[in-house]
Amino acid sequence: MAAEQDPEGRAAARPLLTDLYQVTMALGYWRAGRARDPAEFELFFRQSPFGGAFALAAGLRDCVRFLRAFHLRDADVRFVASVLPADTDPAFFEHLRALDCSGVTVRALPEGSLAFPGVPLLQVSGPLLVVQLLETPLLCLVSYASLIATNAARLRLIAGPEKRLLEMGLRRAQGPDGGLTASTYSYLGGFDGSSNMLAGQLRGVPVVGTLAHSFVTSFSGSEVPPDPMLAPAAGQGPRVNLATRVEAWLERVCAHLGLGVQDPHPGERAAFVAYALAFPRAFQGLLDTYSVRRSGLPNFLAVALALGELGYRAVGVRLDSGDLLRQAQEARALFRSAAAQFQAPWLESVPIAVSNNIDEKELARLAQQGSEVDVIGIGTSVVTCPRQPSLGCVYKLVSVGGQPRMKLTEDPEKQTLPGSKAAFRLLGSDGSPLLDLLQLAEEPAPQAGQELRVWPRGAQEACTVRPAHVEPLLRLWVQQGQLCEPLPPLAESRALAQRSLSRLSPAHRRPELPAGYQVALSEQLRALVQRLSAGASP
Amino acid sequence: MAAEQDPEGRAAARPLLTDLYQVTMALGYWRAGRARDPAEFELFFRQSPFGGAFALAAGLRDCVRFLRAFHLRDADVRFVASVLPADTDPAFFEHLRALDCSGVTVRALPEGSLAFPGVPLLQVSGPLLVVQLLETPLLCLVSYASLIATNAARLRLIAGPEKRLLEMGLRRAQGPDGGLTASTYSYLGGFDGSSNMLAGQLRGVPVVGTLAHSFVTSFSGSEVPPDPMLAPAAGQGPRVNLATRVEAWLERVCAHLGLGVQDPHPGERAAFVAYALAFPRAFQGLLDTYSVRRSGLPNFLAVALALGELGYRAVGVRLDSGDLLRQAQEARALFRSAAAQFQAPWLESVPIAVSNNIDEKELARLAQQGSEVDVIGIGTSVVTCPRQPSLGCVYKLVSVGGQPRMKLTEDPEKQTLPGSKAAFRLLGSDGSPLLDLLQLAEEPAPQAGQELRVWPRGAQEACTVRPAHVEPLLRLWVQQGQLCEPLPPLAESRALAQRSLSRLSPAHRRPELPAGYQVALSEQLRALVQRLSAGASP
Repeated sequence: MAAEQDPEGRAAARPLLTDLYQVTMALGYWRAGRARDPAEFELFFRQSPFGGAFALAAGLRDCVRFLRAFHLRDADVRFVASVLPADTDPAFFEHLRALDCSGVTVRALPEGSLAFPGVPLLQVSGPLLVVQLLETPLLCLVSYASLIATNAARLRLIAGPEKRLLEMGLRRAQGPDGGLTASTYSYLGGFDGSSNMLAGQLRGVPVVGTLAHSFVTSFSGSEVPPDPMLAPAAGQGPRVNLATRVEAWLERVCAHLGLGVQDPHPGERAAFVAYALAFPRAFQGLLDTYSVRRSGLPNFLAVALALGELGYRAVGVRLDSGDLLRQAQEARALFRSAAAQFQAPWLESVPIAVSNNIDEKELARLAQQGSEVDVIGIGTSVVTCPRQPSLGCVYKLVSVGGQPRMKLTEDPEKQTLPGSKAAFRLLGSDGSPLLDLLQLAEEPAPQAGQELRVWPRGAQEACTVRPAHVEPLLRLWVQQGQLCEPLPPLAESRALAQRSLSRLSPAHRRPELPAGYQVALSEQLRALVQRLSAGASP
Repeated sequence: MAAEQDPEGRAAARPLLTDLYQVTMALGYWRAGRARDPAEFELFFRQSPFGGAFALAAGLRDCVRFLRAFHLRDADVRFVASVLPADTDPAFFEHLRALDCSGVTVRALPEGSLAFPGVPLLQVSGPLLVVQLLETPLLCLVSYASLIATNAARLRLIAGPEKRLLEMGLRRAQGPDGGLTASTYSYLGGFDGSSNMLAGQLRGVPVVGTLAHSFVTSFSGSEVPPDPMLAPAAGQGPRVNLATRVEAWLERVCAHLGLGVQDPHPGERAAFVAYALAFPRAFQGLLDTYSVRRSGLPNFLAVALALGELGYRAVGVRLDSGDLLRQAQEARALFRSAAAQFQAPWLESVPIAVSNNIDEKELARLAQQGSEVDVIGIGTSVVTCPRQPSLGCVYKLVSVGGQPRMKLTEDPEKQTLPGSKAAFRLLGSDGSPLLDLLQLAEEPAPQAGQELRVWPRGAQEACTVRPAHVEPLLRLWVQQGQLCEPLPPLAESRALAQRSLSRLSPAHRRPELPAGYQVALSEQLRALVQRLSAGASP
């Protein structure tokens, strides 16, 4: 399987991005003559994150990229040798040098699918040694991606469909590709865009951004713009000195607002003029560097109205401190009165963007009925998932040499479900998911309209269900190292996520205290679990 | 400044790992003729993390690597052009193409230094356009590194100096180099090693690891090892069939423990034998796949005693579920009785390792007096910093064109300290830090033994202090793009961190409810703040 020519390949995970114990186990398997035993692992989580009932599956595109490029370079093998016993058989290192994923098969939930506890996000089968080595990188690539996609989906549910949600957390992420992953998968989960340029370049995420406080404070007002002239938007007519026009508008705006013309900060105004000269079609005012009411708003209005004369429309304002909801209301009221006063009706609906440590609670407040906020930028709360910073995915051996395997342990929470499995989503007549069914791979698929006896996980008794529709959940993406179908574009996975969520019943969808979603075992799978549990201490 | 030949360079941050607004501001500065205005930014945090009084500075080595390699490739510039207005002056893109950090100077706290709120971790000066562009990547590289180093230092303080602390969080990190960063800087902060192979290969972090449950469950007991023979440790004498010897020992062990020989799981035992054959000098038993008492412990003892006959010493056991403290005590008691019973005194002190969602509270319990735990593996709690998953560093403009700059805003918490500064740590006669002093760069350094009037931040009145020693805090690392001295090796920074922490007074060091550490302004700096604040609305 050749590595693809992929601009991201260089930043992507490498084979040694794994735990040492995967490598020591590899030697153990090899020494026991079991390196090529056919094995299957399942990657899943045990509990939905954030107290919700669902997660979104994500990270598959990174896994596929990783698998296709998987190859230990000489330097990698030398490093492995340096941490293994000095008398390790050199033939083991030859085995590692020749290793790739040409024997690996991956079934998985499509990215953007709803995922529930215990249902595999990935099924990975292939030679025991190599599929064991893949454990840590696959967990690393899937867990955080799915966590952040789920977090973004929750924030989208809280914000409602209308608000524009922007991810701005790169600086708060766990290093460079913590940021890249966060931007990519928060978009998949329902955000509209990201501030992260690299996510735009490498992943096609829409990128957004205008200016920061440093731009504003860098101007004192005494700077002389080398070229203050601006042509009208339509391209017809003479160029106009924007700085001069802004000063003229400032007098009218201050008179209207009852402020002195010396109240608004001249450096802030100079910064706005400089930005407007560079971006006449995309001027946004950052209002809170000095004082929103006495400086930011009048300076913004003066620049926006001067641009308006030339046929340009300001694209918005941003508030980044204080009571964002209240300030947005005040700003909107001011825009309305200025729109009337200066016969500039477009001013009424200038989008108001807010940012500043917005969490789920504050987001709900900003999204409430009557809010004048249009755009919400979220950083820390989306990328770090403070409510639950890890999804806790696991990767468990379910069969080897065709025989089912099970971790029993004395902690029932940590028991695994044995055997190679199929998974189905059973749907009601309205198309909403009723439960997910796990069964052995060799069992016939459940049929729509037919009654079925199943064992809900954690329940002591079986129940019957008659699904109106049945959907197989796991798709074959990689067979013996070959990609079976191209991964869908990110925007398509994003649309799938929104479709999937809209089909979920409100009781399962709501972010707080949702109804639990059932995952059930087939009778045969349940019988296998019973049999292996009983045989634990032979 | 040439990019170094660095195996990590390929995975490191790239120039477009930045927020779009840095790029739009770059165009704004350029259009205003200010791209080359000399400017200085400070990178700092406003509050120590985790409710503690201190942080550890970290991430500088990644920043230096990033700066030295900083260069926009053609594809990067093309992407920038695609998100800027179509009529942007092509000369701007020529400017970007020629951009590097040859004009950039960086002063910083050495990695592993104690850092306090408001004291710059980094001072970055150079042409306005380029030092603005650096904001997001530098924040991304410093914030998480410092957060994780601080988190690791806290965990080390809680565990005490004797326990071996191992980081195992790669699978819980924010993608590939979230994991690499976490492993690197948790080592700097006081951990002893990591499971992360890549951190070993690229950063020289000691790597650790043995086996997982999947290795154990992959064996049923019916496998035939291709070569069960093992030579004695000293190399003298005939090879022995280890599997046979283990079965013989199992009978004796079970008799001693009052178990039937059929109680211990044969698959688990086969896995232990396979592992011991591959690692006779590094055999560790993972005890909780089936039942610790009835299976894991007797199987471990049988293998350890069979190895012992050949002169090999088992390196430990690991417990990964249940009440770890209690099980460690039971295991230790068993080791003692087996040591006596089988005249194998080395068995008494077999190291006991534990893992499984260990947080600060559980760590304190495991580290208590009388605990039999020797090695503690921590994953999620170290890499995700659940108590505070982001440090919240900021990067603020403090001067431009030689003039001090200040963000005033109506939120006093978000005000910045203007001007190019120097920072000193004032120490008491016992060498413990008393307070950190910020002053203007041009002021003379404070002198040891001389009384000084300073303004503690947040206080309304000045106070006097007479330091026994004075340490300048910020060191010049990069001058006009040239590295002034090599960054110290990671292990040296780790030693500095432990030295720095040991000098900190217990009141400031304790993880919970510490005394606040004071940061103060010189009279001149305080006067400048007052002057600029008063001039806010001229």
